Amino acid sequence: MSITPVKDVQNLKVAYIGGGSRGWAWGFMKDIAMDAQMCGTVRLYDIDKQAAQNNKIIGDKISAHPEAKSPWKYEVSDSLKEALTGADFIIISILPATFEELRSDVHAPEKYGIYQSVGDSIGLGGFMRAMRTLPMYVEIAEAIRDYAPEAWVVNYTNPMSLCVRTLYHVFPQVKAFGCCHEVFGTQKLLCAMLEKECGIAGVERHELYTTVTGINHFTWLSSASYKGYDLMPVYREFAEKYAETGFDEGKDTNWMNSSFACAHRVKFDLFRRFGLIAAAGDRHLAEFMPRWYLTDPETVTSWMYGLTTVDWRVDDLHKRLQRSADLISGKEPMDMKPSGEEGHLLIKALLGLNPIVSNVNVPNRGQIPNLPLGAVVETNAYFTRDQIEPLFAGELPGNLQAIIGRHVANQENTLTTALTCDRELGFTTFMNDAQMTLKPELGRKLFNEMLENQRAYLPQEWFK
Amino acid sequence: MSITPVKDVQNLKVAYIGGGSRGWAWGFMKDIAMDAQMCGTVRLYDIDKQAAQNNKIIGDKISAHPEAKSPWKYEVSDSLKEALTGADFIIISILPATFEELRSDVHAPEKYGIYQSVGDSIGLGGFMRAMRTLPMYVEIAEAIRDYAPEAWVVNYTNPMSLCVRTLYHVFPQVKAFGCCHEVFGTQKLLCAMLEKECGIAGVERHELYTTVTGINHFTWLSSASYKGYDLMPVYREFAEKYAETGFDEGKDTNWMNSSFACAHRVKFDLFRRFGLIAAAGDRHLAEFMPRWYLTDPETVTSWMYGLTTVDWRVDDLHKRLQRSADLISGKEPMDMKPSGEEGHLLIKALLGLNPIVSNVNVPNRGQIPNLPLGAVVETNAYFTRDQIEPLFAGELPGNLQAIIGRHVANQENTLTTALTCDRELGFTTFMNDAQMTLKPELGRKLFNEMLENQRAYLPQEWFK
Amino acid sequence: MSITPVKDVQNLKVAYIGGGSRGWAWGFMKDIAMDAQMCGTVRLYDIDKQAAQNNKIIGDKISAHPEAKSPWKYEVSDSLKEALTGADFIIISILPATFEELRSDVHAPEKYGIYQSVGDSIGLGGFMRAMRTLPMYVEIAEAIRDYAPEAWVVNYTNPMSLCVRTLYHVFPQVKAFGCCHEVFGTQKLLCAMLEKECGIAGVERHELYTTVTGINHFTWLSSASYKGYDLMPVYREFAEKYAETGFDEGKDTNWMNSSFACAHRVKFDLFRRFGLIAAAGDRHLAEFMPRWYLTDPETVTSWMYGLTTVDWRVDDLHKRLQRSADLISGKEPMDMKPSGEEGHLLIKALLGLNPIVSNVNVPNRGQIPNLPLGAVVETNAYFTRDQIEPLFAGELPGNLQAIIGRHVANQENTLTTALTCDRELGFTTFMNDAQMTLKPELGRKLFNEMLENQRAYLPQEWFK
Amino acid sequence: MSITPVKDVQNLKVAYIGGGSRGWAWGFMKDIAMDAQMCGTVRLYDIDKQAAQNNKIIGDKISAHPEAKSPWKYEVSDSLKEALTGADFIIISILPATFEELRSDVHAPEKYGIYQSVGDSIGLGGFMRAMRTLPMYVEIAEAIRDYAPEAWVVNYTNPMSLCVRTLYHVFPQVKAFGCCHEVFGTQKLLCAMLEKECGIAGVERHELYTTVTGINHFTWLSSASYKGYDLMPVYREFAEKYAETGFDEGKDTNWMNSSFACAHRVKFDLFRRFGLIAAAGDRHLAEFMPRWYLTDPETVTSWMYGLTTVDWRVDDLHKRLQRSADLISGKEPMDMKPSGEEGHLLIKALLGLNPIVSNVNVPNRGQIPNLPLGAVVETNAYFTRDQIEPLFAGELPGNLQAIIGRHVANQENTLTTALTCDRELGFTTFMNDAQMTLKPELGRKLFNEMLENQRAYLPQEWFK
Repeated sequence: MSITPVKDVQNLKVAYIGGGSRGWAWGFMKDIAMDAQMCGTVRLYDIDKQAAQNNKIIGDKISAHPEAKSPWKYEVSDSLKEALTGADFIIISILPATFEELRSDVHAPEKYGIYQSVGDSIGLGGFMRAMRTLPMYVEIAEAIRDYAPEAWVVNYTNPMSLCVRTLYHVFPQVKAFGCCHEVFGTQKLLCAMLEKECGIAGVERHELYTTVTGINHFTWLSSASYKGYDLMPVYREFAEKYAETGFDEGKDTNWMNSSFACAHRVKFDLFRRFGLIAAAGDRHLAEFMPRWYLTDPETVTSWMYGLTTVDWRVDDLHKRLQRSADLISGKEPMDMKPSGEEGHLLIKALLGLNPIVSNVNVPNRGQIPNLPLGAVVETNAYFTRDQIEPLFAGELPGNLQAIIGRHVANQENTLTTALTCDRELGFTTFMNDAQMTLKPELGRKLFNEMLENQRAYLPQEWFK
Repeated sequence: MSITPVKDVQNLKVAYIGGGSRGWAWGFMKDIAMDAQMCGTVRLYDIDKQAAQNNKIIGDKISAHPEAKSPWKYEVSDSLKEALTGADFIIISILPATFEELRSDVHAPEKYGIYQSVGDSIGLGGFMRAMRTLPMYVEIAEAIRDYAPEAWVVNYTNPMSLCVRTLYHVFPQVKAFGCCHEVFGTQKLLCAMLEKECGIAGVERHELYTTVTGINHFTWLSSASYKGYDLMPVYREFAEKYAETGFDEGKDTNWMNSSFACAHRVKFDLFRRFGLIAAAGDRHLAEFMPRWYLTDPETVTSWMYGLTTVDWRVDDLHKRLQRSADLISGKEPMDMKPSGEEGHLLIKALLGLNPIVSNVNVPNRGQIPNLPLGAVVETNAYFTRDQIEPLFAGELPGNLQAIIGRHVANQENTLTTALTCDRELGFTTFMNDAQMTLKPELGRKLFNEMLENQRAYLPQEWFK
Repeated sequence: MSITPVKDVQNLKVAYIGGGSRGWAWGFMKDIAMDAQMCGTVRLYDIDKQAAQNNKIIGDKISAHPEAKSPWKYEVSDSLKEALTGADFIIISILPATFEELRSDVHAPEKYGIYQSVGDSIGLGGFMRAMRTLPMYVEIAEAIRDYAPEAWVVNYTNPMSLCVRTLYHVFPQVKAFGCCHEVFGTQKLLCAMLEKECGIAGVERHELYTTVTGINHFTWLSSASYKGYDLMPVYREFAEKYAETGFDEGKDTNWMNSSFACAHRVKFDLFRRFGLIAAAGDRHLAEFMPRWYLTDPETVTSWMYGLTTVDWRVDDLHKRLQRSADLISGKEPMDMKPSGEEGHLLIKALLGLNPIVSNVNVPNRGQIPNLPLGAVVETNAYFTRDQIEPLFAGELPGNLQAIIGRHVANQENTLTTALTCDRELGFTTFMNDAQMTLKPELGRKLFNEMLENQRAYLPQEWFK
Repeated sequence: MSITPVKDVQNLKVAYIGGGSRGWAWGFMKDIAMDAQMCGTVRLYDIDKQAAQNNKIIGDKISAHPEAKSPWKYEVSDSLKEALTGADFIIISILPATFEELRSDVHAPEKYGIYQSVGDSIGLGGFMRAMRTLPMYVEIAEAIRDYAPEAWVVNYTNPMSLCVRTLYHVFPQVKAFGCCHEVFGTQKLLCAMLEKECGIAGVERHELYTTVTGINHFTWLSSASYKGYDLMPVYREFAEKYAETGFDEGKDTNWMNSSFACAHRVKFDLFRRFGLIAAAGDRHLAEFMPRWYLTDPETVTSWMYGLTTVDWRVDDLHKRLQRSADLISGKEPMDMKPSGEEGHLLIKALLGLNPIVSNVNVPNRGQIPNLPLGAVVETNAYFTRDQIEPLFAGELPGNLQAIIGRHVANQENTLTTALTCDRELGFTTFMNDAQMTLKPELGRKLFNEMLENQRAYLPQEWFK
């Protein structure tokens, strides 16, 4: 009797959709280059073909790097169909529209006194971003259904929950999941706590076990342990100690987080209210409870975190583009530092090479019993050959469920709005967001204004 | 073979708990007096025994009235146990504490810029009212379990949803339901619409069929018909026509609603947003969407409804007490006008005398599939001999579910808070109310202040 | 403001699919003719066009009858599309294939020692009947979706549960329900009990209230009352009294039931086991618990009911065809006796003319919480203008749920088999039926044989 | 800041309830002795105190063995209270009554033509065994609630599902799970397949990943992989190849399975019917589908597995008692061979020492969505410090669900019967078992007889 591995792990086909923003793509390329257990071809597809071509040059350099263990091939695809056909894995990391639309998402509400720290998941900006992003996900989901229905799909695009939700809504058999590193940051905070407060140095975040629950960017740890140690009582003491002053983790060398630092005061305060460890950057967490932490810039400052402005993003992109040019020209040598992400590890696990437990965004099939079935939630899951089995996370505490349940309900309505372009549904959903402080007349003015600001990127049904 | 009716309908035992506020009790006494099909004894129990004694005098007068068809007997009970033992039906209509505590509920938030139109169901006042009312319901539920487990329990007390919820929480086998006349008012509005707009006069509200869904005081009609007529498109036109001016129903001779009139502008606006007919007085509806309709007194005026002040309530009670004295002394003759309530009809249906479909507050067993099981919802139910079968009302529209779901989640947390006296749970619940506009520091100040205001009526665990 | 009834009740369009078996169609024609409140056109469609043409002649005679109150028009349609387009109501009453296939359903298992009393709902015969009937329902459902998506669909075809289930499976928005008179028979038995045992004569079955639960042909009454009387304790005594001798109701003048009489011994025995009143003819009930009541002809005789043979059916049809000819020729005068069915009353209720509570077969949306959602169950529902709201029937007792749950699981697998023609799924489902007593080898032989017997009426995928 | 492990892993308290049957207890004692990471005290409690004292002697010898790495202490407790108070872990492995009652379970039905291969989980014997075992579990659950509510409880007693179910029913907060090695045997079969059929030798079962689903002793693998290999298509070929001849694994040195060998023909046949790998010994599997595999001794022989007779058990116990005596006297030297069980590994994982994925019996909280919530199911779970998170196993295939669902329904009714001693509920449940082939009169005779046979060990309510 013969036995054949289903996938030839030395000859994988990966489709990378988007990635023009560089950072994520490069990190992924290095991570897979450094892993000898798998190899293959990456097909790059981007609406901005030049971006894909640049990424190919960089990918080729990474493959050629002396430290690289696997010489992945890079190809540029002309169409979604070409990129997807025959793919074993699909990575999606896109950013529809330009920074001007992003500027509207984040800053348009400011003249009405509403501030946002990121504007990418929920909130007024998140809603608007969904309006232009989800129609593209409908298209991508249909292409997956038609050209690569068996492929695993890894999503990195925001709004995370709704992008993944849309894939499943359009193509229920899709094998998709969303990855986000925000939980990792909190796990690192626990390691820093162990080192600085308990004198246990050198613990890596993957040595902890944390039960993950909630929704993306408002994710929570309902338990945390390191070997036999229960970290929850330690964290309780820790949160009290640094409640007022904040906690300084020290250096953070990960490029992606460099300007995103916080003193964790929001996180500590949330622990004192709800008894669970909030597991995302404070700037994300604050958006889900804006009246508590995000009423105005002074409040933000007092909680010791920063608003991510679009100007900063413009500047940051400029630097990355410059760096891209420098890497392509060889002016900057290629380093092979791991990204700290887990995408490549999850892919390996799905190939059967090494099972792993990791947090993941997938539809709720009961892993959080007091959130609606079908909504995308973030919990741990067990990744093995060709399957992901969510771990049962249990019920959220009542007062946390009340807050998350509202956001989930809004997300579901945001999806329906994006699919139907129903203005009244959109408006009532927009008005129900926790960030909204306006009376209906002003709310409608802002709603219309923000839609108008991204008119070029919306389905035309909106303006009939 | 012999066949025996389970209940001797001419010899019923009814326990009436509370009723010192007079209006409800008198109405009920008249309704049952006017019905020849059943008779028996009413046991009156009130913490204020004098109130019960006065009600007995009035009850006796009603029984003796020449128009009365059934000579019910009235007795004053000295204890809950005495009142309940052997009861077939139990009516609960209590108002814990005094008007000073009610004043705090409604008016304490005003100096923080938060206005309430009633303060009895949800909201800051509703939360506080629940803190002192639900512990009494725990006691009543235990007494029912111990002394009258087979009796049907009719609740008229607010907060309606939470009072009924508490009965089931403590004694899951209780046969309890909550009655509220707010839906009737909206059915009468539909009758007025038929008369004034369509030229169909003389229709009684019980000739309509309306599908009822939602929660008490934020109840909705998802369909409405009169004979073959679909009233939904008619109401659509109606709501547009009177959206700005409001609609004047003309006289309202029901004492209970006299000062509670509104022009239905809130109701019309809600229809335009959600496509369902909101079915409660505007002053109730507004409390569930305060940012839309209840931000300040000017907004209230612009929507053409009134805030129910506690001063008005004090004055109103004074009048009722005076009327009580006059009725007792004979200075005012007893009229036998029906109350317009349905309590006695529901009792008859439960005796097997006449089945009826009516709206009712009972735990959700699936009648509204996208609200949590166990929470108390308001839908239609079919009342027959010794049973109530809720009618399946279907899913709420997504944007309405988002709003109602949040209130239901808060109610569940309010119950847990009332049972545990957990300050942090209480505070986060209080902060999550839709009426809350304060930052946490001020929110906590108000929370503590409102608790302190009713200290004498709270369990002492709160102040440990 | 104008108000228009949605339906012109004097100009309704009814599509009648099937009906060649005459009895049901004639009864319906008379029922609607006798009701002055509605009128319109009936479009007759039958694969056997001559049958439809004969029904038209009889329909016209009924309309012309002096006692008729509404002169309905009758038309013969050439296609499903023609019959359905514009229909307000659709009646389906078909019998695919010939008596030879029916003979196989009922009698083929006999040589293996397996007896069936009807063979139309579940069991080996019911499974096989579903294989040839459900593909036709797929076709009908698609036609309804395409030509009359807003019409109400009344199903009379067996297997009832699976026919209705298929309509919803193919077209989830369908407004369909299934009607069956078996419950009525048990309600009449209760009336007979009242008359003969309690001396309360003249009670009509619609004066009772019975809570209906279960699945078609294995339906149960979990409560029964008449005015204030609880009939459950009466029935307990009744079932004991006649447990051995059976009970004779006296005459039964309804043609449909004439040869279907029973002494209710099965029904009485079921009450003693489960405490609920089984509400179908004994011959139906027995098929769901064959090891108890249907192991062999002697057992059937001992339980005092009869096996319905196909020879009887052939003979009965012959009589009905003769009667059809006689009615057409005028040899037999037309009588206008009501059928005793409720179909026309349900239609009236859906037109808004008169709300009614009746038992109905629709998908479980929670009305029986311990049966799977989506499966078709039989409970009461409230019929009002353009909507059916199922009444919450509560949980089945555990030991009854164990039996019904197995049948429902088999039905779901029967549906999937009919849709996929998956032989192994079909075989394991066939083997899991409660009637099956064979070891796998013989079971497979019978399975193949019964499929082969109806080869001409099955999709050809079966025989690839 | 200080950090303290919650448990002192070198000073654990383990309560061992039962264990008089020796095998399990000795294996566990050796397993923990060989693990240096944890140590402590085992308190032995058995109704037969002598058995506990003998086990203490053997335990002490194991601790004193030169190869032992952890010198556990052994104590004999006089009461459940004494054993449980302060326990960190509780092991339950009891066998109520004597072999005479077991003989009745297994052999009493034979004279009615009903054969059983084990009689310990479901079936007529399993039902009767539950009647005398579950009342003891009620007592144990109450003792855990009162004396060790925080302890983890490991159950080894049969009927596994119902013992665990009873613990949760009585004390919902219990931290209990059931362990069974049947799945391990099937994993070993897969290893043997890899070696003999694919030439991949030396694979250990814990190197595979298998998705586990179903209920104890009728457990299934819905996926199986080894590294990148999908074992399902391999097993398909394997099952076909050995469908008729059976497959010989070769030696089995595990004492517990020695006489329990089978040729896996039942397993192979089940795969061909359902497409999943049945994961228990054939003698267990057959009891869940008796009409297929267990109609009579000849059928059993043809399927190449054996009936486990009680005579064999008597003989086997005799040998173990002799061996116990020999070990105590020192006539037989103590070997330190691992048991192959995972109990000690699960304990370590719960201490935070090493997370593990293993199959486990716990209440269904949604891990198998198409089985009832609350029923005990067997799936994988992730064991970490102080928590067990079930892995989501997905829906069972429809035809398998139909079979398992029926057994689960019967189990739920068996539990209720054991708690209420309701004879009619018990009888209808007994009659609904898949093994039952009798008509009701004979069924009742057998039912009464089997109850009578164990009268001394049943609650006296049964015989009122």
